[in-house]
Amino acid sequence: MKPNVKKIPGPKSQKIIDKLKKVNLGNSIVYPFVHSNKGQGCYFYDIDNNLFLDFASQIASNPLGYNNLELKNVIKRYSNRHPIKYAGQDFTVKEHKDLIEELLTIVPKTLNSAFLINSGAEAVENSIKICMRKRPKTKFGIAFQGSFHGRTIGALSLTHSKPVYNKNYLKIPNKIISFNENAKDELLKIMKNYDSESIGFVILEPIQGEGGYNVASKKMLIDIRKITNKYNIPLISDEVQSGMGRTGKWWAIENFNITPDVISTAKALQVGAVIANKKFSPEPGAISSTWGGGHILDLALGLETIKIIKRKKLLNNINNMGYYLGKRINELNVENPRGIGLMQAFDLENKKLRDDVIIECLKNGLVLLGCGHNGIRLIPPYIISKTEINQAIEIIDSSIKKCSNKLFKHQGAICNYMNCGDILT
Amino acid sequence: MKPNVKKIPGPKSQKIIDKLKKVNLGNSIVYPFVHSNKGQGCYFYDIDNNLFLDFASQIASNPLGYNNLELKNVIKRYSNRHPIKYAGQDFTVKEHKDLIEELLTIVPKTLNSAFLINSGAEAVENSIKICMRKRPKTKFGIAFQGSFHGRTIGALSLTHSKPVYNKNYLKIPNKIISFNENAKDELLKIMKNYDSESIGFVILEPIQGEGGYNVASKKMLIDIRKITNKYNIPLISDEVQSGMGRTGKWWAIENFNITPDVISTAKALQVGAVIANKKFSPEPGAISSTWGGGHILDLALGLETIKIIKRKKLLNNINNMGYYLGKRINELNVENPRGIGLMQAFDLENKKLRDDVIIECLKNGLVLLGCGHNGIRLIPPYIISKTEINQAIEIIDSSIKKCSNKLFKHQGAICNYMNCGDILT
Repeated sequence: MKPNVKKIPGPKSQKIIDKLKKVNLGNSIVYPFVHSNKGQGCYFYDIDNNLFLDFASQIASNPLGYNNLELKNVIKRYSNRHPIKYAGQDFTVKEHKDLIEELLTIVPKTLNSAFLINSGAEAVENSIKICMRKRPKTKFGIAFQGSFHGRTIGALSLTHSKPVYNKNYLKIPNKIISFNENAKDELLKIMKNYDSESIGFVILEPIQGEGGYNVASKKMLIDIRKITNKYNIPLISDEVQSGMGRTGKWWAIENFNITPDVISTAKALQVGAVIANKKFSPEPGAISSTWGGGHILDLALGLETIKIIKRKKLLNNINNMGYYLGKRINELNVENPRGIGLMQAFDLENKKLRDDVIIECLKNGLVLLGCGHNGIRLIPPYIISKTEINQAIEIIDSSIKKCSNKLFKHQGAICNYMNCGDILT
Repeated sequence: MKPNVKKIPGPKSQKIIDKLKKVNLGNSIVYPFVHSNKGQGCYFYDIDNNLFLDFASQIASNPLGYNNLELKNVIKRYSNRHPIKYAGQDFTVKEHKDLIEELLTIVPKTLNSAFLINSGAEAVENSIKICMRKRPKTKFGIAFQGSFHGRTIGALSLTHSKPVYNKNYLKIPNKIISFNENAKDELLKIMKNYDSESIGFVILEPIQGEGGYNVASKKMLIDIRKITNKYNIPLISDEVQSGMGRTGKWWAIENFNITPDVISTAKALQVGAVIANKKFSPEPGAISSTWGGGHILDLALGLETIKIIKRKKLLNNINNMGYYLGKRINELNVENPRGIGLMQAFDLENKKLRDDVIIECLKNGLVLLGCGHNGIRLIPPYIISKTEINQAIEIIDSSIKKCSNKLFKHQGAICNYMNCGDILT
């Protein structure tokens, strides 16, 4: 297969997107196509029959690509059931137990229980909740510069990447430290002024996602783990985007040989999850959610996703293809290539060029996402092949060349959808 | 059909629940059965072939009962598609537009746009976010005594029912007023000390859910609406539980002839939603969510749910059966019967009796939920019939009689699951 785009937005997509924009209280800059049910592996068709190669993977939440046969069989298995959503924390469905049990086979042994929930943001919310509940003297949490933990007020208070995420919103107190080797001294300085028990938790992304695919310094992580261990402060590894195999290990933090106290995850897992030692389990009523652990189809798909990754040894493919992708990125005229496994990114000279390149790639059938100020992330499905990476690199390379011309400017209908020359996140 | 319970938990259910409890970081008191895929209308079987009559409706999130044929057809229609979850705010699926358009046909005309999200808690989070974004001087919100708005930190900060929900958690600032006719004076008093622009929003449930099915005073609501209108403070009606027809009108607040600025809903809609005038729409990047507006099956089920309620004129059934249910409750030996439509509750003399009665009813095949301190809620599916209401009332009546004996005490295996004699929420 090869990406093949005639016109974006195509007429059918344009109609739907225009109507949606009119009634959507949300205001994202949407990509100028509408998904169809056609596709295969890393490729999908939009409803105008444009064929795209997907290096965005539904923001890392579609790890196995399109029309995966085994996942389709799961969906088929549930096609004669109604309802598919139960109030899972109160009314048990078998899928709830099955997914937690499977999930616990791929996490560090000390993390022997999990709480399932509806989204990545809710996973982070519940991660900090279980920490605070055990720490009655909590006055604030510790988060890192550049972090993105989600868009509910708790998670958002700890988010320090772009101002647009939290402007004017009320926040819970937290102190921010640098995402580099200064973190240790900054944390110790805070601890000079505050009792360690007033720190509810330390939360970090081993590879910052939205904030720019910044890979943590190993020394920083080791320092932070040492301090948090010494003072018994819970360390949360937020792996909503980086977890579930994306980096070639099940959890990004394993690349640094560190065991956190809590892992929050979602996206590739198909549901949100907080994973921790059972000793963090609070009293009845402290955490719950109507649909958490109750969407039997999402639960079953999450379970099968883990099984497929195991059965097809996809962590190997992620490592191999991650290495190859990294090598190919290095041949490009880009800045600061970085990442682990299939969680890779690079920067372009400035934001305008970055935005232009994303749009130009899209016109050529390659779907990419931005990150940070002028970064582009490359997060294809775990099943990606060399041929597909080569296709992507070729499109990126020619797009950079084309857009680097100082007179270059996108024009036409696409600019009504993707704000050509303006912000893309 | 008639409820028919041999033994709870049955052996198959017990095995799964025991295993789940071992690995679940959450710690709810689960009902002692595991759902099977068998059931019809308001009845469902557990995996041990016990047959239950459901007056809990998956905490109001299953409005149309079990094995609804039309909803099953929707699920079948999607059974050959994968994925079913897209990153819907960035990558458009047609179902996103379709559900918003349908939703807007059943809301007050001034509320002409909606933002779709993953849960009720996230609906509340985004409701307060859109208000605060437009109000840069926000210092706090206003919430009501007895409220429950969800379990993420933003929503939870505004929740003032049981202490177990938010003990030790960091909070965003809000001021609490009484859920009665004093509310007006209390709000005006706050406004003597603070500029109206420092109030980000006022949020209330027209019928408080978790807090005890407390029906708002009409006078209170009119007063609050007058003040918030006069000072231009956004009024949020949280209808996560009470909305979508539960009270016999599409929105609970319509029973009071009041139009709020924002409605938050979820549960019966199958996804979360914030509904407001488009003027509340913030700049790109201010609100989003990976899966919001992207779970094509949940979106399609939400859409069909609205259509079925319309087509089968279920609001009429809710009104008629709600009236009948209320009448039958009044014949019982209970305190403070209350509610609107099929959102009804009553109190028992004390918490122990309430808990005992819920368990006794369950043993007789009727599923109920508690609320408040010693209340029981009755929230059957919208398709409930007189015969089924009579069955439920009969079980409740005999259970109250049995449990009212001062020497009564539940015994046996069920107490390992439902904490007999202890807390049920």
